[in-house]
Amino acid sequence: MWQLLQFPLCPFSRKVRLLLAEKSIGYQPVRESPWARRDEFLHINPAGQTPVMIDDEAGIRLIDSMAICEYIEETGDKPAMLNGSAADRAEQRRLVTWFDTQFYREITGPLLMERMEKRIVHRQTPDTRVLREAMKAAVEHLDYIDYLLDHRQWIGGATMSLADLAAAAQISIADYLGGIDFKTHDLAKRWYVGMKSRPSFRPLLAERMEGVPPPADYEKLDV
Amino acid sequence: MWQLLQFPLCPFSRKVRLLLAEKSIGYQPVRESPWARRDEFLHINPAGQTPVMIDDEAGIRLIDSMAICEYIEETGDKPAMLNGSAADRAEQRRLVTWFDTQFYREITGPLLMERMEKRIVHRQTPDTRVLREAMKAAVEHLDYIDYLLDHRQWIGGATMSLADLAAAAQISIADYLGGIDFKTHDLAKRWYVGMKSRPSFRPLLAERMEGVPPPADYEKLDV
Ligand SMILES: N[C@@H](CCC(=O)N[C@@H](CS)C(=O)NCC(=O)O)C(=O)O
Ligand SMILES: N[C@@H](CCC(=O)N[C@@H](CS)C(=O)NCC(=O)O)C(=O)O
Repeated sequence: MWQLLQFPLCPFSRKVRLLLAEKSIGYQPVRESPWARRDEFLHINPAGQTPVMIDDEAGIRLIDSMAICEYIEETGDKPAMLNGSAADRAEQRRLVTWFDTQFYREITGPLLMERMEKRIVHRQTPDTRVLREAMKAAVEHLDYIDYLLDHRQWIGGATMSLADLAAAAQISIADYLGGIDFKTHDLAKRWYVGMKSRPSFRPLLAERMEGVPPPADYEKLDV
Repeated sequence: MWQLLQFPLCPFSRKVRLLLAEKSIGYQPVRESPWARRDEFLHINPAGQTPVMIDDEAGIRLIDSMAICEYIEETGDKPAMLNGSAADRAEQRRLVTWFDTQFYREITGPLLMERMEKRIVHRQTPDTRVLREAMKAAVEHLDYIDYLLDHRQWIGGATMSLADLAAAAQISIADYLGGIDFKTHDLAKRWYVGMKSRPSFRPLLAERMEGVPPPADYEKLDV
């Protein structure tokens, strides 16, 4: 049985968990708080980051969410979440990286720092200037998602792919932290409601980070 | 014929170029300076980053160095640069990401800002505190490379892989910018001299960035 080292608001872990669920691969979530910088964890992953996926019996340790997803794609069953032609897969990978790096750097990362880490680790209040910047960036990213969905069926192209899981993972954490307003973003909203409704997604939406409650409508499917 | 949008000191482009050369895939380098934020370039890649690889005849545009490398792996001939078992490939991918993100963030990125961008774009002098931090980080990264090479033949495991190309790409740019001192790092040095000696590497070492000369011994194979 796989063990997945993660915490409830880690968007990279959430992407991996969505992929595992879409492929019906079982795993045991194990709580790891990267900010605690546990020696034992740093010994496993010198980058000190979640997620890490471990199968102790098979002696396999997978580190970095994209390396984990590629592993799952290579070894798991269908549906392929990197699919179509090689060029299609490249476009899907581009968008995974877009959400994992640009969206995370401008939105999810700052929100996690201001609304989670400052609250539960540093006992500080959030910097409202940083929050405002993140929410402004979120509007631009929703514009880009609207633009993509105006030209194609799914985030990464004609089919559902890992790009949708990566995007939904980042958005759902940003939404949990109060950073998303779908107003005027109808295509993005309709797509996200579809993602939220998937059986792979429902259990994740029910999870809570202690001390960090989500907005009232976070789990609702119609907003 | 592929066109590769890049500039001489882009470590991500260098990784792609090493992979193309190892696979004997021809391409035409096309100069792109991401800091100029050309409208036409931003239209191609909204992330505004090099490298971008284009085959206009086939209508293919590949964006993000890892997506490009995966594409080359999927479509190109041997030697496979992600090789061995799925777990082996995951370890190789982990280390590509390690060098592309940790090494770049702590070393290559700051050096490029202080010693290239400030000089040729902003006409400013480098911040010596930032340079010192980057060089301290470089020593720690060389320690980690020594540790890896004390336990395995190559950076990513028992075989040469994309992890070696990613590591050598980052190190060679940091070295061009005067940030690397191999003193006391014998395993790292021997490995890097081996990488530098490869036919895929020699032409890259001969390239220069105008206004930013490398140290005298940058191209030498014995230092
Ligand atoms: N490239 C990594 C990024 C993972 C990452 O940044 N995880 C965050 C938690 S959401 C973390 O562990 N941050 C702690 C740190 O970077 O020190 C991946 O995709 O797995
Ligand atoms: N994840 C990207 C990173 C590429 C990257 O950061 N490229 C740098 C040049 S070395 C760049 O274009 N920076 C400009 C910017 O980020 O605005 C990749 O692997 O291709």
